[in-house]
Amino acid sequence: MPKKNILYAQSGGVTAVINATASGVISAARNQSELGKVYAARNGIIGALREELIDTSVLSNEVIAGLKYTPSGAFGSCRYKLKGIQENREEYERLISVFKAHNIGYFFYNGGGDSQDTAHKVSQLSQEMGFPITCIGIPKTVDNDLPFTDNCPGFGSVAKYVAISTLEASLDVASMCESSTKVFILEVMGRHAGWIAAASALAQKRSGGAPHIILFPEVIFDEEKFLDEVNKAVKQHGYCVIVASEGAKYADGQFLAQMGSKDAFGHVQLGGVAPMLANLIKSKLKLKYHWAVADYLQRAARHISSHTDVEHAFALGEAAVKLALENKNAVMPYIKRDSSSPYRWHIESVELSKVANVERTVPPEYISENGFGITEACREYLAPLIEGESYPSYQNGLPLYVRPTFTMLEKKLEQEFVIR
Amino acid sequence: MPKKNILYAQSGGVTAVINATASGVISAARNQSELGKVYAARNGIIGALREELIDTSVLSNEVIAGLKYTPSGAFGSCRYKLKGIQENREEYERLISVFKAHNIGYFFYNGGGDSQDTAHKVSQLSQEMGFPITCIGIPKTVDNDLPFTDNCPGFGSVAKYVAISTLEASLDVASMCESSTKVFILEVMGRHAGWIAAASALAQKRSGGAPHIILFPEVIFDEEKFLDEVNKAVKQHGYCVIVASEGAKYADGQFLAQMGSKDAFGHVQLGGVAPMLANLIKSKLKLKYHWAVADYLQRAARHISSHTDVEHAFALGEAAVKLALENKNAVMPYIKRDSSSPYRWHIESVELSKVANVERTVPPEYISENGFGITEACREYLAPLIEGESYPSYQNGLPLYVRPTFTMLEKKLEQEFVIR
Repeated sequence: MPKKNILYAQSGGVTAVINATASGVISAARNQSELGKVYAARNGIIGALREELIDTSVLSNEVIAGLKYTPSGAFGSCRYKLKGIQENREEYERLISVFKAHNIGYFFYNGGGDSQDTAHKVSQLSQEMGFPITCIGIPKTVDNDLPFTDNCPGFGSVAKYVAISTLEASLDVASMCESSTKVFILEVMGRHAGWIAAASALAQKRSGGAPHIILFPEVIFDEEKFLDEVNKAVKQHGYCVIVASEGAKYADGQFLAQMGSKDAFGHVQLGGVAPMLANLIKSKLKLKYHWAVADYLQRAARHISSHTDVEHAFALGEAAVKLALENKNAVMPYIKRDSSSPYRWHIESVELSKVANVERTVPPEYISENGFGITEACREYLAPLIEGESYPSYQNGLPLYVRPTFTMLEKKLEQEFVIR
Repeated sequence: MPKKNILYAQSGGVTAVINATASGVISAARNQSELGKVYAARNGIIGALREELIDTSVLSNEVIAGLKYTPSGAFGSCRYKLKGIQENREEYERLISVFKAHNIGYFFYNGGGDSQDTAHKVSQLSQEMGFPITCIGIPKTVDNDLPFTDNCPGFGSVAKYVAISTLEASLDVASMCESSTKVFILEVMGRHAGWIAAASALAQKRSGGAPHIILFPEVIFDEEKFLDEVNKAVKQHGYCVIVASEGAKYADGQFLAQMGSKDAFGHVQLGGVAPMLANLIKSKLKLKYHWAVADYLQRAARHISSHTDVEHAFALGEAAVKLALENKNAVMPYIKRDSSSPYRWHIESVELSKVANVERTVPPEYISENGFGITEACREYLAPLIEGESYPSYQNGLPLYVRPTFTMLEKKLEQEFVIR
């Protein structure tokens, strides 16, 4: 019997280091005689359904090594959540058909909570259908909201970007505030969890105190208390730096920047907390302000990725291969912290059934009493995650990111699958 | 007679490398036996008027060297333009009194066009008043809009940041566009000149073509043509990346994102082109979009400064000292390009009278025929300016930027000066 192949798929919002995980998977699997080839789904699970599979075995070792330094999803990702098996069995059966057609024995799904859930379901159904697939979920999400794992690959790099950007912008505002901008607002990602916003607090020791206010999704927005705090900071320091999570919300659950549109997972699409707060400050406090919205720049900023984060991402890719070789099914490898200072960690694994649909937000003991900052415990947790730089190579002033040329597998199934 | 001192002042919006110029001035002046001390005005010209002067001679060589790697204005900057001598002679006379009181013989004003104009006026009046000051303007502005100089210190680093950010975000969108975001908009600085927006085009060779659309202040915004171009890019590539200058405007001169408020120079304060374009794309094309506004992050991003830019900034500081020693009055040192490939340059100087109030925008021969891109000539001009990395040192995952402790000179004048 020919050796079973691996199908690797990227899912959901991409990060600065998800390709480092791909690099870990592919380089580890190449060295294993028991394994077949590593295929990558084009555009995530959509490509698996459409039988659009990329043969990574033709990519050079240099390209695979270069993936460790390249942001985005090199094979394409997608926002597409499989429905429950009861609601749409057809999709799962199609996946199994594709797996069968290409002798795939291992499915590595690299994503957040929704993806772990999908990997779990695929594992269950494949057994039911008599073509058991070893399904392994590999964690990834800048939101840092998965349970069990100490942190999620992608987060450490966003955290570093946000901490550095906050430090740099704070020095800028401090030098201008006497006659110009008094309030600076930076909007960061984090729909339901304020981990990214929290990371901006790591700038405080270097900046002399900024950011002065952090808005978390976990803390109900109180307009009056917020405006008081802005005034206090401006009086005390001459300026105020605010880092606002996109998910900051009012007591009734309404987001500060509700935009009405929804993404493919049915989540409300956010954006615009910063201009909303700027308008508030303008009308109520009459202070001169500036605002920035980092959006994709933060999660794609491979040029300033955390070395710790890159190492995590790569190691988790390698670990997935190791788990596959041990025939561990329906599990997710994760980062287990041994100590914070010095930072020590190793990899363990947990059953997908325990991971799926559990969201880890910033706990109350990590948020300062006034709701606008972080505690020492949170600082101790976050600090090691931004440690170390992992610079890409440069040519002509720009990073040498790889953009692999795809060699697609020939389709074997008669039917096309149409994504609805 | 005691040796004459230098007064150095930072002006206008700060940059990632204005402190490198300060570092160049101070380190060059320290080695000159003919010169007294270097004083720095606290918060720019406001500090000079208030007699708030910082003694830089007590700062260690390590701190001065560290300034080369530190963004923002270490001594404080300001947005405060002196009026014409006829309108407000009092301010100029006050400056001369402060210069007399502290035996200042040289005034180095580090700023954009307005500052060169002020330095020129101070030079004229000081002669009229019988206390001649050698006034030297040192160029600085991320807008890159000063005449004579090949480029303005601060611009190369913003250009590099914007090119890298555009590259990274473009890879991100490319990997998600099959099922998610189709249009990404990045708003960058550049009120009247589109140099920063133009620099995003340097990403094109690495990104496979993005950005697809650049909006310049120099090109009148045509909604229909713009929407057609967005549609074309999405059809051809699956996605569209847009880099919009904050100064993009309609045929009637109205900014796309007029916000109504004005800064201290009387300029309209901008912000919000990106969300405005996003709304347009949403309502007219019904495409899924994301947008980012880089704002201060771009001009403060010392972590990814251009080495070329840092070298320019430092060398211009040194050159100012050399000009002072040669008693060249009312001049500005500038970068003269000798060749583009390889990039070679040297420093020359020009009379301030020729610099003041001349604005250099992106010329028509640098903008592509359809108005949405740059020409090869522009690419050749821009490419060397982002060359080389100049990384700061890091500790605990964050850059080691210096924040000097200020030793203020004792005030000698009886009268306080109140800024109106």
